[in-house]
Amino acid sequence: MKEVSIVPIEKREIIPVWEAASRILEQTITLPTETVPLEECDNRYLAEDIIATHDVPPFDRSPYDGFAVRAEDTQCASKQAPVLLKVIDSIGAGHVSEKTVQEGEAVRLMTGAAIPKGADAVIMLELVKEIGSGKIEIGRVFSPGHNISKQGEDTKQGTPILKKGSKIHPGAVALLATFGYERVQVMKKPVVGILATGTELLDVGQELVPGKIRNSNAYMIASQIKKAGGEPRLLGKMPDDLEQTYNGIIAALQQCDVLITTGGVSVGDFDHLPAIYKKMEAELLFNKIAMRPGSVTSAAVYEGKLLFGLSGNPSACFVGCELFVRPFLLKALNADKVHLGVLKTELQEDFLKPNPFTRFVRSRVEWEGSVPAAVPVGLDKSGSVTSLADANALIVLPGGTRGWEIGSEVTTLLLDGEGSVWPWDLAVKSKS
Amino acid sequence: MKEVSIVPIEKREIIPVWEAASRILEQTITLPTETVPLEECDNRYLAEDIIATHDVPPFDRSPYDGFAVRAEDTQCASKQAPVLLKVIDSIGAGHVSEKTVQEGEAVRLMTGAAIPKGADAVIMLELVKEIGSGKIEIGRVFSPGHNISKQGEDTKQGTPILKKGSKIHPGAVALLATFGYERVQVMKKPVVGILATGTELLDVGQELVPGKIRNSNAYMIASQIKKAGGEPRLLGKMPDDLEQTYNGIIAALQQCDVLITTGGVSVGDFDHLPAIYKKMEAELLFNKIAMRPGSVTSAAVYEGKLLFGLSGNPSACFVGCELFVRPFLLKALNADKVHLGVLKTELQEDFLKPNPFTRFVRSRVEWEGSVPAAVPVGLDKSGSVTSLADANALIVLPGGTRGWEIGSEVTTLLLDGEGSVWPWDLAVKSKS
Repeated sequence: MKEVSIVPIEKREIIPVWEAASRILEQTITLPTETVPLEECDNRYLAEDIIATHDVPPFDRSPYDGFAVRAEDTQCASKQAPVLLKVIDSIGAGHVSEKTVQEGEAVRLMTGAAIPKGADAVIMLELVKEIGSGKIEIGRVFSPGHNISKQGEDTKQGTPILKKGSKIHPGAVALLATFGYERVQVMKKPVVGILATGTELLDVGQELVPGKIRNSNAYMIASQIKKAGGEPRLLGKMPDDLEQTYNGIIAALQQCDVLITTGGVSVGDFDHLPAIYKKMEAELLFNKIAMRPGSVTSAAVYEGKLLFGLSGNPSACFVGCELFVRPFLLKALNADKVHLGVLKTELQEDFLKPNPFTRFVRSRVEWEGSVPAAVPVGLDKSGSVTSLADANALIVLPGGTRGWEIGSEVTTLLLDGEGSVWPWDLAVKSKS
Repeated sequence: MKEVSIVPIEKREIIPVWEAASRILEQTITLPTETVPLEECDNRYLAEDIIATHDVPPFDRSPYDGFAVRAEDTQCASKQAPVLLKVIDSIGAGHVSEKTVQEGEAVRLMTGAAIPKGADAVIMLELVKEIGSGKIEIGRVFSPGHNISKQGEDTKQGTPILKKGSKIHPGAVALLATFGYERVQVMKKPVVGILATGTELLDVGQELVPGKIRNSNAYMIASQIKKAGGEPRLLGKMPDDLEQTYNGIIAALQQCDVLITTGGVSVGDFDHLPAIYKKMEAELLFNKIAMRPGSVTSAAVYEGKLLFGLSGNPSACFVGCELFVRPFLLKALNADKVHLGVLKTELQEDFLKPNPFTRFVRSRVEWEGSVPAAVPVGLDKSGSVTSLADANALIVLPGGTRGWEIGSEVTTLLLDGEGSVWPWDLAVKSKS
């Protein structure tokens, strides 16, 4: 038996979730930028504002297959007395007619082709009677501008199109291509080191042995980091040994912008992170949050780098990463909606037992149907891992002296899609 | 001037959007599977069901730092008359005590440690008075099972955990790690060739010249394909020349599972795709859909491969890819929710002019606030590209003889997040 000295349990300052997130967002790291080929810029964050470098469309063009005419030539046209026009040219998209449309003339042209000089209206193919020997009949009056996609009608040169910090999606790619960006300037991905601590941890490829479990948190966090725009670096695992973990952290910090550890942040005999922060003289941001799971989630700053001490419990680890690491990375990437997206949903289960801490319940939002509904999934314990299989949201149940009944309107944080801006409205509206 | 023969405009069968989607989904391609390292499986689609290969937790363990005791030893404990227990061992997570807890004994243990033989309750550190010489005082009664995370309470061995066809997200990664998957069997990505047609097209790196525009559709589609789980292959661009495009398509089909062309699907003089499908003897699925934009979106089958003929207009091209290509790829990946996600929102603008075709209006859903609202963005024309910058949704306005007023409840298709299953409810509910 190892001799255990009796140490009084350290008193920690408990802060609300929002205060913790706010302390994290006061910290900054400055990321360099890099240019990547257009084909590889998906899901990266723009390092510059993109403005329209030319009008779109860049010239007056035809939105249909048809004939370009002078509207005034149709002014006397009717079904009974159609106007006869002479077709002087025929062009497809990509071509510019060298002819100018004069009185009584027309140019046959295809969708996307430039409107020839002299013409000011396009008549769709279907509305024109072609009568041979290069002649057409028009049986209706058309106004000037009819069926002309005017230069700049979609956007004018100089218009801001995409903002610095936007995440690049397919529509943004279309615009970057339109304006000639073969290479795109994006934020370099923040490198996030991940170091798992815990003597109980096996590698993923190892067979289970009594008392041990596989290291799942590190891989899960790596996946969360990628989703949040960062570049994870898996730095392995450490047993619960102060010296070894201290050295591991110091070495890890050399190769990343942000370091995440899992485990070792509680008050147990082998929870060495608090002592390590002290030994490093890192500035502690917090080590106790009024939330479940993950109340021992910790953060500290060391030589301008952020250290996140996430819980070793899978669900607590997951939630801590989404609530605190994610916004920090997104802010560094210049994104504006750095927090999880918010949706109000109706509570589908009673949570009648009050909890002084704010709860984040792993849940599943189902979209189909008229009102999206969020349903808690899996075991609601910090150690649960299977609840993460189906969760696409976290229902927020604010801490306090009362519980919440079915039908209450609750804030639900969405794990997918666009984020939200600060602050969230966390009020729970009771059913009646 | 090029001689143009007068050909009557081909009559096409107009089918509803849902019929077109349904004809696409009747087609199948069988993708091979491949195994990838756990670290690289994000956003891939599982090729096998994953079941729990062991109980979680795999042994009874402590969820807290504390003392493992026999509950019956505390039956007479009270504040006034605390029970004295002898601490016979101290273990951290990852360790198994060799001792058995006997009457009057306790084992100090940390979060995650296995419950020692003989013990059936854990008392949190904070509730125990340590009085020196390896003795503790307990001032309360505890029941058997108190603070024990029971073997299998999270999940039992053999339970289905993740379904074949699931998209791998961070929570799934945690589970794969937990169950020892160093490598994961996933569906191979369908290779999607992209061939842009149009004499008007410049490369992205080229300077604008009169009558021409840059090829933005191909890059946009590549980005959409990646988002839908496919592997795009950019095959360049072709002028509007029948022979050259025919040869390009035949060559392209050798190197992909699915081929997308853009442009050339309408009825204009240089719209060669209909003739090419005929020449290839491809089975036409459709070439006219009652939708805007993208009514000329076409699809055909050739030697078991799908050919999508998307419009050359950026917005039409975008919508066609989301509505028809995306579900086809997701089905091939075994996903179950292959269509865009659905949300009912309130129309924020009048669309009073009736349109016989169903419209897909590029829109932006804003989540914040109690009810998500969708607002149309940019120019509502098929040639618009800037509307794609801000769009995260498509508002669906069913075709018919009436328009829709502000406040009507409309179906909105979400471009991000999870998809939906067939069929959609497309009814518009009027305001009052």
